[in-house]
Amino acid sequence: MKSYIDLNADLGESFGTYTYGNDEALLPLVSSANIACGFHGGDPSVIRRAACLAAKNGVTIGAHPGYPDLLGFGRRNMTMRPAEVTDMLLYQLGALDGICRAEGTRIHYVKPHGALYNMADKDEALANAIAEAVRLYDPSLMLLCPGAGMMAKAAAQAGLKVAREFFADRAYMPDGSLAPRALPGAVLSDADEICARVLDALETETVKTIDGQTIPIAFDSICLHGDNPAAVSLAVRIREALLQHNIKLKAFAQ
Amino acid sequence: MKSYIDLNADLGESFGTYTYGNDEALLPLVSSANIACGFHGGDPSVIRRAACLAAKNGVTIGAHPGYPDLLGFGRRNMTMRPAEVTDMLLYQLGALDGICRAEGTRIHYVKPHGALYNMADKDEALANAIAEAVRLYDPSLMLLCPGAGMMAKAAAQAGLKVAREFFADRAYMPDGSLAPRALPGAVLSDADEICARVLDALETETVKTIDGQTIPIAFDSICLHGDNPAAVSLAVRIREALLQHNIKLKAFAQ
Amino acid sequence: MKSYIDLNADLGESFGTYTYGNDEALLPLVSSANIACGFHGGDPSVIRRAACLAAKNGVTIGAHPGYPDLLGFGRRNMTMRPAEVTDMLLYQLGALDGICRAEGTRIHYVKPHGALYNMADKDEALANAIAEAVRLYDPSLMLLCPGAGMMAKAAAQAGLKVAREFFADRAYMPDGSLAPRALPGAVLSDADEICARVLDALETETVKTIDGQTIPIAFDSICLHGDNPAAVSLAVRIREALLQHNIKLKAFAQ
Amino acid sequence: MKSYIDLNADLGESFGTYTYGNDEALLPLVSSANIACGFHGGDPSVIRRAACLAAKNGVTIGAHPGYPDLLGFGRRNMTMRPAEVTDMLLYQLGALDGICRAEGTRIHYVKPHGALYNMADKDEALANAIAEAVRLYDPSLMLLCPGAGMMAKAAAQAGLKVAREFFADRAYMPDGSLAPRALPGAVLSDADEICARVLDALETETVKTIDGQTIPIAFDSICLHGDNPAAVSLAVRIREALLQHNIKLKAFAQ
Repeated sequence: MKSYIDLNADLGESFGTYTYGNDEALLPLVSSANIACGFHGGDPSVIRRAACLAAKNGVTIGAHPGYPDLLGFGRRNMTMRPAEVTDMLLYQLGALDGICRAEGTRIHYVKPHGALYNMADKDEALANAIAEAVRLYDPSLMLLCPGAGMMAKAAAQAGLKVAREFFADRAYMPDGSLAPRALPGAVLSDADEICARVLDALETETVKTIDGQTIPIAFDSICLHGDNPAAVSLAVRIREALLQHNIKLKAFAQ
Repeated sequence: MKSYIDLNADLGESFGTYTYGNDEALLPLVSSANIACGFHGGDPSVIRRAACLAAKNGVTIGAHPGYPDLLGFGRRNMTMRPAEVTDMLLYQLGALDGICRAEGTRIHYVKPHGALYNMADKDEALANAIAEAVRLYDPSLMLLCPGAGMMAKAAAQAGLKVAREFFADRAYMPDGSLAPRALPGAVLSDADEICARVLDALETETVKTIDGQTIPIAFDSICLHGDNPAAVSLAVRIREALLQHNIKLKAFAQ
Repeated sequence: MKSYIDLNADLGESFGTYTYGNDEALLPLVSSANIACGFHGGDPSVIRRAACLAAKNGVTIGAHPGYPDLLGFGRRNMTMRPAEVTDMLLYQLGALDGICRAEGTRIHYVKPHGALYNMADKDEALANAIAEAVRLYDPSLMLLCPGAGMMAKAAAQAGLKVAREFFADRAYMPDGSLAPRALPGAVLSDADEICARVLDALETETVKTIDGQTIPIAFDSICLHGDNPAAVSLAVRIREALLQHNIKLKAFAQ
Repeated sequence: MKSYIDLNADLGESFGTYTYGNDEALLPLVSSANIACGFHGGDPSVIRRAACLAAKNGVTIGAHPGYPDLLGFGRRNMTMRPAEVTDMLLYQLGALDGICRAEGTRIHYVKPHGALYNMADKDEALANAIAEAVRLYDPSLMLLCPGAGMMAKAAAQAGLKVAREFFADRAYMPDGSLAPRALPGAVLSDADEICARVLDALETETVKTIDGQTIPIAFDSICLHGDNPAAVSLAVRIREALLQHNIKLKAFAQ
């Protein structure tokens, strides 16, 4: 089994007076922080606090750009032309990176958010638009995405390195995509089950799908959703489970 | 008299379907482009086009950050805490710079927009917040501002270089500030008068105030407002007038 | 042939400093004004001016609600749950109507804008969500939409009266939907051709499709796009052509 | 002593995924609900839920319009021309009222939010702009505001009825305005102290200022801030205290 793995979570998604997630509690627990860039969530001061906390905790920062849809938290599909997506990502990567500079750090990877992530992984033009933005911004940045979809393919074609992620608390479809949230059993909540599943996936590089099949799942990072009250305790549990099996947390990019 | 001077204008201020100014016509005429950063105007694709045109025309790019007030075009006073202003500027500088990277260029200076510019030049804490953002982002960036106000002072204290600007088409108050637009005679529109005034200011380093006094006005750049239909023809006229007096256009930062 | 017909156009779509269309010139020429409600375009002061001008010119006001997407001008598809669409429309109808009150008038009909219009006319759930909002707000309001699509059907089921519109400058598909703008010939620009087509449609209640077929097209209103420079002159031409054939302009709702 | 009094709180201020306050718990406890109108907080679906809950609980609904500043939650001063404020309020009143219609109810009063409230109570032109919007929208609506400031004066001049409010948990200045939050002692948090103060104010129609003076304070409604975790338990305590003194909760407008 691997001797180390990355644990990533979405952070910096509060907005003004509105609080979302618990950056203070989560940042000491993860190795990679996907920080919102102000479009689906996050504002400059929220982002700066998250970047500051990440730097203090030695957590690698990645950009988490999304659709310009604060009301829908970037979870609603929107039709944008690929060139617009590229420009929108350049803007968001630069914005976050500008704030990181003030904290003496920088972004190391990109993970698209929400609907942009889900759509791009099935849409070649959208995936290419994202890869193009990353390449234009800084070709040494990695793309964090599923190992099997369009984004990984687009990144490879653009000469970008890919970090593949495994969703600790989401069920998989036979094609390796995530089961839609609306499906029964799509979202797992039992910490014991989630930990066992993570360890099993690390050992076997396979995962059971929502309909009981076994599919291959190689990955470099475990994705932990930070937007529910149990995220912090789940992060603690996963860290402990990994440690007990002599697997250390380590960012895939540093 | 100087053998060269800079001519700057605000650009990249359109938004989506909404067109503002005439970037295509103005960019070949100026030496420095203050490009909007998406808060008071500008969107990622508009900004990218402006950056692309500036790069093609050999025009130096500066960031033109503003208040988060698209409806008011950044011209309405807003009370923001200085720390929030610093964060907001880091975000905007980075965003524009991220897009510039894709065009093989970068920002060289910062000129705050609208109400932020006017308020900061009279408010020490706000001016310091702006200078702090520029310093944190990149201390080699210059600040483009009036020579006599709080911004120039704050920039000096932060160790930043300042480029002082002269407003070609705006009347001055005895204290060196701009006459409010509402005052009769505050905005000049006659091209002959404006050109004569620019040349006179270049020669004498003084300007007549709105009430007929003569005050000193040393400057490194002439500001041309790009938001009226006459801006393009005025830019042409000023260029010609300068050329006839053997004064070349040259960006203050390169 | 009919002795009167309605002519509608989109109005009130400027935003702050950004001007869009020419409300002053168009409002004396149409009989029905689809006024933006602040989501895809329009702001409270722009809307009030449009409502004031409509009232002065005796033009019937309809609400023109759109997706919450100013950057995309409401022309980008977005996935919203039907219940959210209903709430969003109630908000927009009320907002415009509130402004109309100050001008001593009120809204008489609803015409969804852009992507919302196009999507809803093919999506039963979305069409029902729109009809539900109109019915809840005021069941005496009419829905202005194509005669053949989902919106007309949903309106009928909700007990709403429908005004069917004919697009003067857009080509039709064999199924009665509009040809996508990207198709060659989808948008007509020749005023003579457009006028002839309008008169022919009024006389025969048929229209030639983009591939040369003839399909029935009964309608109560002619839609004129107001967002191009030629809109005003086209409106003048259509009015003249109608007048020469003794067809008067008259709003379908009053 | 009065035999009844009104208890009002701000509600419907969540936005999309972002939760703010606890509408479900607070609405059964108050008699008047100041519902956000989508500018400083609130979105159409959040507003509809609040209106639905208010209607179910027999709570009178008032409009709580604010500046167009979601990021600052309407708490930042903005300079807007009075005519723009009037238009902005017409829009917001109508928007909320449109949603209320769907729940079989309507707005009965208006209470400006945050910076708009604070600025208007000291600025005659702004206060008049607000009163003008209310009058134009529906002159039977009441204005909920301090009894001693510019808003009450403007409302009277516009022929509007005023409901005067007392802030249960905020200290007063000698001139009857609220002590700025930054002052020590400006915000009260002890429930016993707050209840005693409310009862004392009801009995004596006076209140002790932050510097120990006694000033007159006649009022028709007690304002309870809903944005802290203790708001619900504080509402319960105040209700109990009032009941023990045979003072019933009753909306000032119905």
